[in-house]
Amino acid sequence: MFPQDIIRKKRDKQALSKDEISAFIEGLGTGDFKDYQASALLMAIFLNGMNARETAWLTEAMMRSGVVIELDRVRKPKVDKHSTGGVGDKISLILGPLAAASGICVPMISGRGLGHSGGTLDKLESIPGFRVDLSIPAYRRQLAAIDQALVGQTASLAPADRILYALRDVTATVECIPLICASIMSKKLVEGIDSLVLDVKYGSGAFMETVEDALNLGRSLVAIGKEMGKGVVAVLTNMDQPLGRKVGNALEVEEAIECLRGEGPADVMEVTYTLCTEMLLLAGLAETGEEARTVLEKHIATGAALERFRQVIRAQGGDSAVVDDTGRLPRAAFEKDIFFSPEDEGLEGGTFYVAGINARKIAVAAMILGAGRESVDAIIDPAVGVSGLLKVGEPVAAGDALCRLHYNPDERLAEAEREVREAFSFSQKKVDPAPLIGEKIR
Amino acid sequence: MFPQDIIRKKRDKQALSKDEISAFIEGLGTGDFKDYQASALLMAIFLNGMNARETAWLTEAMMRSGVVIELDRVRKPKVDKHSTGGVGDKISLILGPLAAASGICVPMISGRGLGHSGGTLDKLESIPGFRVDLSIPAYRRQLAAIDQALVGQTASLAPADRILYALRDVTATVECIPLICASIMSKKLVEGIDSLVLDVKYGSGAFMETVEDALNLGRSLVAIGKEMGKGVVAVLTNMDQPLGRKVGNALEVEEAIECLRGEGPADVMEVTYTLCTEMLLLAGLAETGEEARTVLEKHIATGAALERFRQVIRAQGGDSAVVDDTGRLPRAAFEKDIFFSPEDEGLEGGTFYVAGINARKIAVAAMILGAGRESVDAIIDPAVGVSGLLKVGEPVAAGDALCRLHYNPDERLAEAEREVREAFSFSQKKVDPAPLIGEKIR
Repeated sequence: MFPQDIIRKKRDKQALSKDEISAFIEGLGTGDFKDYQASALLMAIFLNGMNARETAWLTEAMMRSGVVIELDRVRKPKVDKHSTGGVGDKISLILGPLAAASGICVPMISGRGLGHSGGTLDKLESIPGFRVDLSIPAYRRQLAAIDQALVGQTASLAPADRILYALRDVTATVECIPLICASIMSKKLVEGIDSLVLDVKYGSGAFMETVEDALNLGRSLVAIGKEMGKGVVAVLTNMDQPLGRKVGNALEVEEAIECLRGEGPADVMEVTYTLCTEMLLLAGLAETGEEARTVLEKHIATGAALERFRQVIRAQGGDSAVVDDTGRLPRAAFEKDIFFSPEDEGLEGGTFYVAGINARKIAVAAMILGAGRESVDAIIDPAVGVSGLLKVGEPVAAGDALCRLHYNPDERLAEAEREVREAFSFSQKKVDPAPLIGEKIR
Repeated sequence: MFPQDIIRKKRDKQALSKDEISAFIEGLGTGDFKDYQASALLMAIFLNGMNARETAWLTEAMMRSGVVIELDRVRKPKVDKHSTGGVGDKISLILGPLAAASGICVPMISGRGLGHSGGTLDKLESIPGFRVDLSIPAYRRQLAAIDQALVGQTASLAPADRILYALRDVTATVECIPLICASIMSKKLVEGIDSLVLDVKYGSGAFMETVEDALNLGRSLVAIGKEMGKGVVAVLTNMDQPLGRKVGNALEVEEAIECLRGEGPADVMEVTYTLCTEMLLLAGLAETGEEARTVLEKHIATGAALERFRQVIRAQGGDSAVVDDTGRLPRAAFEKDIFFSPEDEGLEGGTFYVAGINARKIAVAAMILGAGRESVDAIIDPAVGVSGLLKVGEPVAAGDALCRLHYNPDERLAEAEREVREAFSFSQKKVDPAPLIGEKIR
């Protein structure tokens, strides 16, 4: 089987066979498939597509390109959650402990942030001492002991995904549903899970800006899961404005702890409950959504979920006292409130409402301050970011703070402030935010 | 300008700018454009196309990727011919000397054969002593002295074409009109010519099998020429059966000499006169086709063209006495006539006509005997091939020879014979060959 014959087939809009897809992925490792051949095939896939079976075969081949973790000795239902990436998305930090408190094993392997959406690992590392680089045996032991792990990818997991992702990044073949799906699903399925809940975000702060694109992605992800015999549910959630009121690494850990204490913002809790309900249903631990919701609210109210967060922080070497005292998290040296000024906005009159908050601009502001990576090797400042964000629909008058910037010296404060100001829009009429939870795809 | 931005544009079906195309071709040389990026762009071009202006810019960038030969001191009109490749196509060997005899400077740089169509250089090298590897100064001196050169590509000419061709070959991006056009035209335009006549072949022995594909290619080639301010004419010619009666390197030189003596097969002469007529018209050396044809026939009849062939052979170190005695050319040790047997063909009755001769199969037979290359590094046997080929429409009876195989020991004779037998088809009704000369595109 020559690489060019496989490329030619996809070029000519034919479906590839399982063997051809395996040859491609295995060849990436052995060198039988050169990178210039892989990129030609990626472009042909980008332009001519892949059907659900091809995408499932690609996912499986990528998953099997490295170690596949075996969790058969874990008796509890093994369910994970993956988000396509949003701004202020600290859901994993709340949902992991909450699901574990509810009887689920959550073997969560996460990525770092690149571009405007933050990475779960970066957030966790703002907790003093927290280690995300567990070995696979240590990860398995921890799961057996406390049902939870929050770790990073290692080189032995789905190496084909890293090779392909690096190529896609420099050959304009990133925004391709089958390739995105195979990348997401191969990385998750190496965890040895039974089921997966996907948070597919759409809106100004999401990778998929329109509902239609998010629906397509969600449907493809669920189709692959079914082809591979896994329980998969995708939930569309809105990402037009940031999730919660805080964006930044330590700031988001702080907000996650507030949520686990039952004091979190309504939108963050709503997304957490919705996704975690689907996890319980997939795990067979609840019969109905109402039943699941009752259990979850109880674990927040009793502090059981918070204790589970303390447990995982301690297990991974972190300062677990942060759950009692968020003052132990890193803090930026300076803070600046950004005040609303109707005159500066060219507005007249008394009371206004927040009409929109461009999530991407808030993310860019946080990135400028040092909370995110503008390039792969950038170093993150865990302390900086944005807090006290107003939400869409909230009233605002002259002199009110729209949000607070947390910054350290030498940062590009003025630039960040400009982004934040541009993010906000206002209305004299009351504005209702877009519905937070969209379609569920099962 | 990032490579991925250029790739993205073509991926999204947009036309590239001149600067973007230059950046791509220059980047191939400097390494700013990696091979895996080039192949992704080639696939995007394959699938989304290029318009005439983009193709002309690509041609120009490829042409300027190396040395462009300057022939301003040559006063005669500089006109070349290029063929898209056929079986038994020895036209260049006749047309070059004939055009030179008619007052044209013919600075012909040719390629070697790969696959089923033979290369002009391989044919010339069957003349004892003939050297095709002239330096550029020697080539220019020879053109100034005798108006003709028959040389090979050097590494300094259009190096981007070699890089791209090697990539296209292994990424299934060969059969793409804009890329084919840019490859052909960039290699020809480095010669410093004023005008170019293109022989675009179609049929079983051609790269383009259908008239429609050949028309598209011809129109694109002419459009590029016009964009670049050159006089270009494309002539479609039929390649369903081999040209002439001989296929093989020394055998084709022999047939070319027969043609220059006025004793050549009608089809070879017809294509030669047609193409050379267009050269004279482009050069302004004739007002009408009839006038050109009269001049050309005279140069064959007087032996002026044959003398010009002797001159170029001598200039390039070859044994010019071959034009008087073709017995000096290499000869295979063995010959075998392939006889017609109606019974073996499952036919009954007396007289038949040759209904078709699959040119590709004849080429494969010659290649099996050693006349062509099955791989890039194969060594050619100049002496072997096929002669005495019947032509479509000629009568044939039991015991007549269809052709003669020339072979040396250790060759796969039986395999070649099978290909030849499969190439021929017969009819009891008189068959007219397809018209040899098709549309002319100006």
